[in-house]
Formats: sequence, structure tokens, C-alpha cells
Amino acid sequence: MKVGLIGIGNMGAGMAGNLIKAGHTVTVYNRTRSKAEPLAAQGAIIADTPAEASGGNAVITMLANDDAAEHVIFGKDGVISGLAKGALHISSSTISVAFSRRLAAAHAEAGQRYIAAPVLGRPEAAAAAKLFIIAAGDADALETATPVLGAIGQRTFVVSDKPEAANLVKLSANFLIANVIESLGEALALVTKGGVDKNYYIELLTSTLFAAPVYKTYGNLVASGQFEPAGFAAPLGLKDMRLALAAGEELRVPLPIVSLLRDRYLALLAQGGEKLDWSAIGALAAKDAGER
Amino acid sequence: MKVGLIGIGNMGAGMAGNLIKAGHTVTVYNRTRSKAEPLAAQGAIIADTPAEASGGNAVITMLANDDAAEHVIFGKDGVISGLAKGALHISSSTISVAFSRRLAAAHAEAGQRYIAAPVLGRPEAAAAAKLFIIAAGDADALETATPVLGAIGQRTFVVSDKPEAANLVKLSANFLIANVIESLGEALALVTKGGVDKNYYIELLTSTLFAAPVYKTYGNLVASGQFEPAGFAAPLGLKDMRLALAAGEELRVPLPIVSLLRDRYLALLAQGGEKLDWSAIGALAAKDAGER
Amino acid sequence: MKVGLIGIGNMGAGMAGNLIKAGHTVTVYNRTRSKAEPLAAQGAIIADTPAEASGGNAVITMLANDDAAEHVIFGKDGVISGLAKGALHISSSTISVAFSRRLAAAHAEAGQRYIAAPVLGRPEAAAAAKLFIIAAGDADALETATPVLGAIGQRTFVVSDKPEAANLVKLSANFLIANVIESLGEALALVTKGGVDKNYYIELLTSTLFAAPVYKTYGNLVASGQFEPAGFAAPLGLKDMRLALAAGEELRVPLPIVSLLRDRYLALLAQGGEKLDWSAIGALAAKDAGER
Amino acid sequence: MKVGLIGIGNMGAGMAGNLIKAGHTVTVYNRTRSKAEPLAAQGAIIADTPAEASGGNAVITMLANDDAAEHVIFGKDGVISGLAKGALHISSSTISVAFSRRLAAAHAEAGQRYIAAPVLGRPEAAAAAKLFIIAAGDADALETATPVLGAIGQRTFVVSDKPEAANLVKLSANFLIANVIESLGEALALVTKGGVDKNYYIELLTSTLFAAPVYKTYGNLVASGQFEPAGFAAPLGLKDMRLALAAGEELRVPLPIVSLLRDRYLALLAQGGEKLDWSAIGALAAKDAGER
Repeated sequence: MKVGLIGIGNMGAGMAGNLIKAGHTVTVYNRTRSKAEPLAAQGAIIADTPAEASGGNAVITMLANDDAAEHVIFGKDGVISGLAKGALHISSSTISVAFSRRLAAAHAEAGQRYIAAPVLGRPEAAAAAKLFIIAAGDADALETATPVLGAIGQRTFVVSDKPEAANLVKLSANFLIANVIESLGEALALVTKGGVDKNYYIELLTSTLFAAPVYKTYGNLVASGQFEPAGFAAPLGLKDMRLALAAGEELRVPLPIVSLLRDRYLALLAQGGEKLDWSAIGALAAKDAGER
Repeated sequence: MKVGLIGIGNMGAGMAGNLIKAGHTVTVYNRTRSKAEPLAAQGAIIADTPAEASGGNAVITMLANDDAAEHVIFGKDGVISGLAKGALHISSSTISVAFSRRLAAAHAEAGQRYIAAPVLGRPEAAAAAKLFIIAAGDADALETATPVLGAIGQRTFVVSDKPEAANLVKLSANFLIANVIESLGEALALVTKGGVDKNYYIELLTSTLFAAPVYKTYGNLVASGQFEPAGFAAPLGLKDMRLALAAGEELRVPLPIVSLLRDRYLALLAQGGEKLDWSAIGALAAKDAGER
Repeated sequence: MKVGLIGIGNMGAGMAGNLIKAGHTVTVYNRTRSKAEPLAAQGAIIADTPAEASGGNAVITMLANDDAAEHVIFGKDGVISGLAKGALHISSSTISVAFSRRLAAAHAEAGQRYIAAPVLGRPEAAAAAKLFIIAAGDADALETATPVLGAIGQRTFVVSDKPEAANLVKLSANFLIANVIESLGEALALVTKGGVDKNYYIELLTSTLFAAPVYKTYGNLVASGQFEPAGFAAPLGLKDMRLALAAGEELRVPLPIVSLLRDRYLALLAQGGEKLDWSAIGALAAKDAGER
Repeated sequence: MKVGLIGIGNMGAGMAGNLIKAGHTVTVYNRTRSKAEPLAAQGAIIADTPAEASGGNAVITMLANDDAAEHVIFGKDGVISGLAKGALHISSSTISVAFSRRLAAAHAEAGQRYIAAPVLGRPEAAAAAKLFIIAAGDADALETATPVLGAIGQRTFVVSDKPEAANLVKLSANFLIANVIESLGEALALVTKGGVDKNYYIELLTSTLFAAPVYKTYGNLVASGQFEPAGFAAPLGLKDMRLALAAGEELRVPLPIVSLLRDRYLALLAQGGEKLDWSAIGALAAKDAGER
């Protein structure tokens, strides 16, 4: 297939490489062109505009937030203007539920197809084609997407025929991860003040009831206090908590844990954490407890 | 070894059976004697008082809370009065950090030995000798306990030479589990109002980043809404959150997630949930969201 | 002065009457024209468009939220298009800080003047010209507004030369009021379960340390459980908490009390409280405590 | 009347002086005798034991917490042993609901009478006989207490015939005050980051809807950042939040605001605030927001 990929960051670079390996003809676009250029050596075509990257059968967008997606999709020479009738937009960005709904309407009006397909996994998983994909949309659009999604992920979960449901599930997964970070931060603050070794404690948890990747990855990050460089930056954590709360507000679901997490991210950023990994909220409980 | 076991509830019954299977001479005591009697058929001696069950090399207590433990240990014909000098008390109850410290002092004064060894695992794990044991105390006391602990669990983690540190770790593990329940409750309330299937959602989580026993067990409980009969009853959940907060207060560690969980258990009990499993707090987010 | 007033709801009607009494020539506009018509008998001119109501020296907008204000101000035949160069827009709506900043920029670009002047007080205070006014903007614009503000309020507080600071202060006042409601709700839930009479308790508080109008008004509302008809409706309470949190997010200030209040409003609306007064969150603590 | 007063701290000293002025024969006791001695010059008798101070018609206890009260009342030469049959114990300490219930039972068993009569007001109000008294107990015991309570306070509120209800109401009043402090701390953190002057903001609030003594006193304390010397020390704030939560737990009433306040006091103490006034939690929101 002829596939475009817009947004060549930590995640997008790995995804593009895997699309090429799978035999697709891949055109990439990035606002800062220099970030996309290394992909040329792997066989990618470098586009000058989002529209140009949208000239094939399908285009994936992998962008930081609603504003970036708005610009790339609805702006001059954007995805909407470049995509042919019947061609497919696969939105993998972690965007708001409301914006995903708006995309569905805009593509329908333009005679184009649209699915949401955000992913679970950090950059290493993207590079290894080991992402989990949360997909939603019309059955035939999902079928068209199958060879594309198969090239970048290890498994696709179809959660609904309404695209925005996939964004909702993705936001919920992100707050569940942030919740793991915060709860481990509190537990570590407590047991270390009681004289227990941090690393042994994490080993105990992850060898028993909490033997899940997310506890291992984030338990080690919080125990080590190594929050730079950021795999997923703290401002994105704040954004995702805000989007989860906005979705909850629209659906009339209070989410007290997410409110607490949002306040943690805000405190982290207020105290100079803009460049840190989002797992750095895991250090705030110890700070509140008077530890440095 | 000659081993006593005091407290024959959901957990204690399985533990006693495994001690017998391992070849120990086992004397059991339970306040309501009838609950202990089935163990006689397996070879256990039924004691009339806690002191009588404490006449061997070691005695395990597995009781519901500080009050029950206080009665059995310090009361008339209690453990303190029955245990020989140099004999060992293994406290497996989920008691407060302060009470565990007091036990350590009382046994030292009486020339007896003491370790704390609370366990992770539900009744099925106790029956299968698959408990995880969190142990703390003097090295030689821990060594004496090894054949006993080996008979009831699959692995022992030694977290400190101060017994109460094991109780602290156990309480932290329990609030981490309650946190998993609450966070899944909020996530399910959100995504189901957005049209996603509950069971498929839990499968998605537990097939990907959250592939841990605790997410599987409690995810299925919350998704099914089956909270009876209680494996671990809601009032015990409230008690454990209270004890974790008390430990945090003593160590000067604010635990905002635990404060929130305590309020959830209180709401659950106020609304008639005394008999439910502690996972029933996972239904409160949906209730707040106006679902029945 | 020739003054326009846009938005004839519970608050606007009283304000318009007082402007007329003070001798101003008053033109009013309301989307649902019939609500404005009773004012004709008092001497008001009824305008057909916002622009028409903006033809004098100054125009006040008193609208429910950002969306309504956006429509009336930036829409076809809106305030921007109707206001003469040098004429003054006085925004009394409780709008977001960000939207107020945008208004300041838009009016400056159009050569018009702008102040924010939200008010404190319920409809009875508006009718009695007893509002408190929180004003911010350029000194000369504030001077121009003096005879207008003097006609509707008992005292004007000038908090900054940046208009949006007045909106920030207004939002903070609203969350402080909501906080009073919630805290009284919790206190009443507690003491009434302990056998103390509700009304006597409110008398005790408001005769001693809490002798402020806000405790009297809301204490009696919560104790009586009379939440209809709404003086200020619950959805507006949710909106104001959201705007306060958005302002806090922009300024990097975590506001945990406001997060909690937002969740309360969301629960109230989810459980059918759309038509209730915003003081109805004061009944939720008792509900959580199992009272009907 | 012959009246004893036990506990000569910031509050007790003023109360003793006013009892003497009202013509009562006053015997005082304080653990650190030197603190009581200045009262001898005003005409007080200095007792050597609590029992000795309990030898008259009535004895007031004004102590820091349950432990101090336990020692003074149930200890050797304590109140119980010194009080004659039919004589009255007036407990003005802010103690737990459970301990007050236990006192009622102990005095009944000893043939003595008991009321709870905690007070509202800071040391200046105690010195000026301007305290508000929250009283509960049997009608005839309350009548006996009238000339005593009248000498120290400006008004007595009788909330129940069960003594412990007065303690419950007192605890609720204290958490309402702490809530005012916290909410003002959040509001000030927000508006000052938005460029508004702190003192003018407090003037605005306390001239309008929040014109209550508690907002004036604590608004000025928080705005000034002057938290030493402590009028009411931070550890007492933590204690009162803990007692309010314990009362809520017993009555099955979740109190989310109080949970949040407890965590604030814990953070304050963990960060070195042991000697500060309890209003110092009002500075934590600004600290979380990255202000010094």
C-alpha cells in the first residue's frame, strides 16, 4: 500500500521504519523536516506538506496534541485537502474524544474514511513493532487498515465502531498508568521512611501480585529517581489527565483519582519539571513527606 | 517441629493443612472451636486455649485485627503466658505497625522470640501453599521460622530486621491492591458510558501493560459486579486503609490516594456493604456517575 | 449615558432596572426577546441585535458562559461590530480568564475600550443595586464606567489594570462559595448522624465564628434541603469550577479543593441534578453516608 | 462556687482569671507548676495534684489531647479519685468523641456528674471572657454549670443531652476553620500568581460575602505569612483532623475535605512545621505552585 505518516517523533520514527520493512511505500512528513530526513536512507519519501503525505491509500497521524493535529489536518495543505475520496485517515495521536468526533464528521463530509487507532507502548515498542493498537471505526475501514496496523503493532483491539471510543480507551489506559506511578510513589515514600530498601520492595511487588510490565518499568523509574531524558514528557501527562477529565465531564463521570493525578502533574510542572519524564510525579509523595 | 496455629478462618485453615502435610506436629486454636474441629481429621490437635497452642517451638497467629490479637496474645491463657523462653511467635495477622512494635517489646521482655510474617494471597493461595510471605525480625528467629514458612508459602521476602517493617510493607501492598480496584472502577465507569464492553476492556488491559494477577482477579470481579460471598470483606479493607494512614501519620508521610480509598470504604459500609467483598468499592465510581 | 445591556436573565433584569432608575438611557437585548420585553414598561428600548444594543457610550454583557458571550460578541451583528471606536464594553459575565484576555485583544484591535466587571451577589442583590463589583482594566476606561457601575452595585473593587484579573478573582470567589457549601454539607452529615439538630447547628456556626452572609444563606439552604427553584443552577457551578481549574492550570497552581468540588458537581449532574440550585452539592456528603 | 481548673496553658490561664473575677473560689493545677503560679497573685489556690483541684463543686479540665486527659483524669491522684459524689466534671478539652463517651461512663459509675463543654475562640477570647461554649449533658448538670460557664464565655449553646455530641460539634467547627484556611490558601495562590494584591484580595472577600471573623483572622494570617508564634499549634490541627475522621468513621460518614486537610497537616509537619500556627497549611498551595 501507499501509506503516509505524519509526525516523526520518538514514536513515529519507529513506526515509519516498520511500515517500510513490511513492504509499504511510505511518504513521511514532519514540521521540522530534519527529523524526517534520516528515514530517506531507509527508503521513505520526504513530503513537503501534510497534503503531499496524504496522497496514497492511507495516512497515519502521530502528533503530540489536539493543536498540532488541528494544524496538520485542517490547515493549509493539510490532510483533509490532500486525501482522496475513499482514502483512509488513521489517527494514532492521543487526542481528545471531542476532537476525534470532529475528525469523524469532517472526513465523512469530505467523502473520506477515518479510524482512530492510538497505541500503547513506549518508543522501544514502536521501534520493535510491538505496539498494542486500540482501534475503532467502521468495519470496512478497519479492514483496509489491517496491513498497516499489522506492520506496526503486535495486536489490535477493536473496541467500538465509533472512532472516538478508541481515544477514550487510550486516555483511560494513560490515567491507569499515571495511577500506578502515583501509587508506587506513595508506597515507596512510606516504606522507605520505615527502613525498607526501595529496590527490594519493587522486586517484592513485581515478583508477586504486581507482576506486570507497567509496575516493573515505572517501579524501577521511581525507585531510581532517574527522570531524564523523558521517554514521555510530564506536560503530555498533564494533557492526558486533562483530556480524561474532559471526557469524564462530557459523559458525566466523576474521576477522583484522575483529579488527584492532574493536580500532581500541575505541581510537578509548577516546580520546574517541564523536561522530566511523566514518571517524576512518583517523587512528589516523598517530597511532601519532607524527603529531598 | 511442634507448631501452633491460632486463628482458623479462611486463611488459617489452609495454612494448618499445609503445616501438617509438611510433617509438623500441629496444635490449633480457634475462639469458635467448631471451626477448628475439621482439622482434627487431618491430624491436628485441638487446643482449648491460646496458651495451650503456644506450647511448642513456634506459634503462628492469623487473626482479623489488633483487638483480636490483643485478646489472644495478652489475655488470660494467652500466647505470652503459654510460650516457653526462647520459643518463637510468628505473627501473620495484618495488624498495625504500632501493635507489632509492642509485641516485639513484650516478647523480648518475656525472653521469647518474635517475627512478623504477614502474607500475600487469598484463601485459594493459602490452601495451595502458594502464599508470598513478607517477613522481618532477627536473623536467627527468621532461620528458626524457615521450615514453618516454607510449608505455607512459595517464597519469603525478608524486608528488615525490625519486625514492624513487615507489617508496614503488608499494609502498603493492601492499599496498592485497593488502589487497583478503585482505578479500575473509575476506568470502567468511564469507558462503559462511552459504549465499550466491560469484559473486552479488562481483557485489553490484562493482555497488555496490566498483565498482572491483581488486575485479572479484581478486573473480573469489578466487571462482573459479583461481590458476594466476600473473599476478603469490606470492613477489613477499611481497617487496612486506616492502619496504613496511621503508619503514614507516625512516619509523617501524607498518602492522598489512601485517604481517598478510606473514604470509599467508609461510603461502601455506610451504604450497606458490610458483607461485600472489598472489591465492591470498584462499583462506587459508576454509582456516582448515576449508573445503578 | 447611553448604555446597552445584553443578557436579560435573573441578574440582568435587575441591573437594567437600576440603570434606568439612575437616569441612563438603556437599550437591552436578549436572545429570547420576550424576556426583555417587560423592561420596556420601565423605559428600556428593546434592541433586535447585540450590535444595536452596543450603539451607545457603553454596553454591559451579562451572559451565562463563554459560548454565549462568543456568539453575542463576535457573531453576526455582534458587540464588536456595533460598538463605536472609543466606546466601552463592560463584561460582567462569569467567563474564562482566557476568553477575557481574547476580548481585551479584540477590542484593542478594533479601537474600542474594554473592562471586566463581574459581580458578586444573587438575583435579589442585583434587583436592589446591592451587587459588589470586581473590576479591572485601564484607569480611564474604569473612570468612564463609574456612573454605570455605581448604578448597579454598592461598591466596586478595582483589582488590576489587566481585565482578566477580575475574572480570575470572580472565579476564586465562586469556588470559595462552593467550598462553603461542601464543607457545611460534610459537617451537617457528621453532626446530624451524631444526634445534633441541623438548624440549631447552623445557628451556632453563624452566631459565632462563621457569622458571614455566605454561611447563613447556604447553611440554611443545605439544612433545609430546598434546592428548587435554582437561584444559580448546578451546571453553572460545574462550569465555574472548570474555569477556575483551567485558570489554575494556565498559571500552574494546583487547586485540590476545587478538583474535589468539580467532582461533586459532576456527581450531582450525573445523578439528575441539572435543575437544582448549585447548593445541592451540600446534600451529597449525607448521601455518601447512607442517608436518603 | 468552689471550682477547680486543670490545665493552665494559653487558654486555661485566661479562663482561671475570669472565674476568679466572677467571685468563684478557684483552685488550679498544672503539670508544670510554674505555669500556674502567676495565678496565685490573682487569688487562685495552687494544687499539687489533679485530685486536689477536684475537691470543690466542679472542676474544669482544659487539656491538649486524649493522652493528657487520660493521665490527669484516670491516673494516680486524678480527677476521678478527687471528685466527690454528685460533684461535676466539666470537660472543655478538645478530646475524641470516644474518650468523652468513656468519661461519661466512668463518672456515672463513680456517682459523679459530667458534661462536655469545649469552647470556640483563641487565647484573646479566653482572656476577655468572650468564648463561645458548646455544651452537652444532663439538664441538671448543665444547670449546675451555668455560673461557671457564664464566667468564661459570652454564650453557651446546648447541643444535646449526650455529652459526646458537644465534642463532635467542636471537632466539626475546627475542621470548618481549617477548611477556611486551606481554601484561602488556594485562592491566594491563584490570584497572586494572576497579579492581584494579597491584602486587597482579603479585604475584598471580608468586606463582601465572607465578612466573618474567621475569614478576617485567618485571611490576614495567611496573607502575611506570619505563622509564629503559634496561637494554636500545627500538631493540634493534625490531631483535630484525625479525631474528626475517627468520629466520621465511627458514624460511617466519609469526609473528603477533612481527609484532604489531614494530609495537609501531615505535609506541614513532615516539612518542619511543628512549631508553626495551624494556619501555616495556608502556605502549602503556594508552595505546590512553585512559590517559595
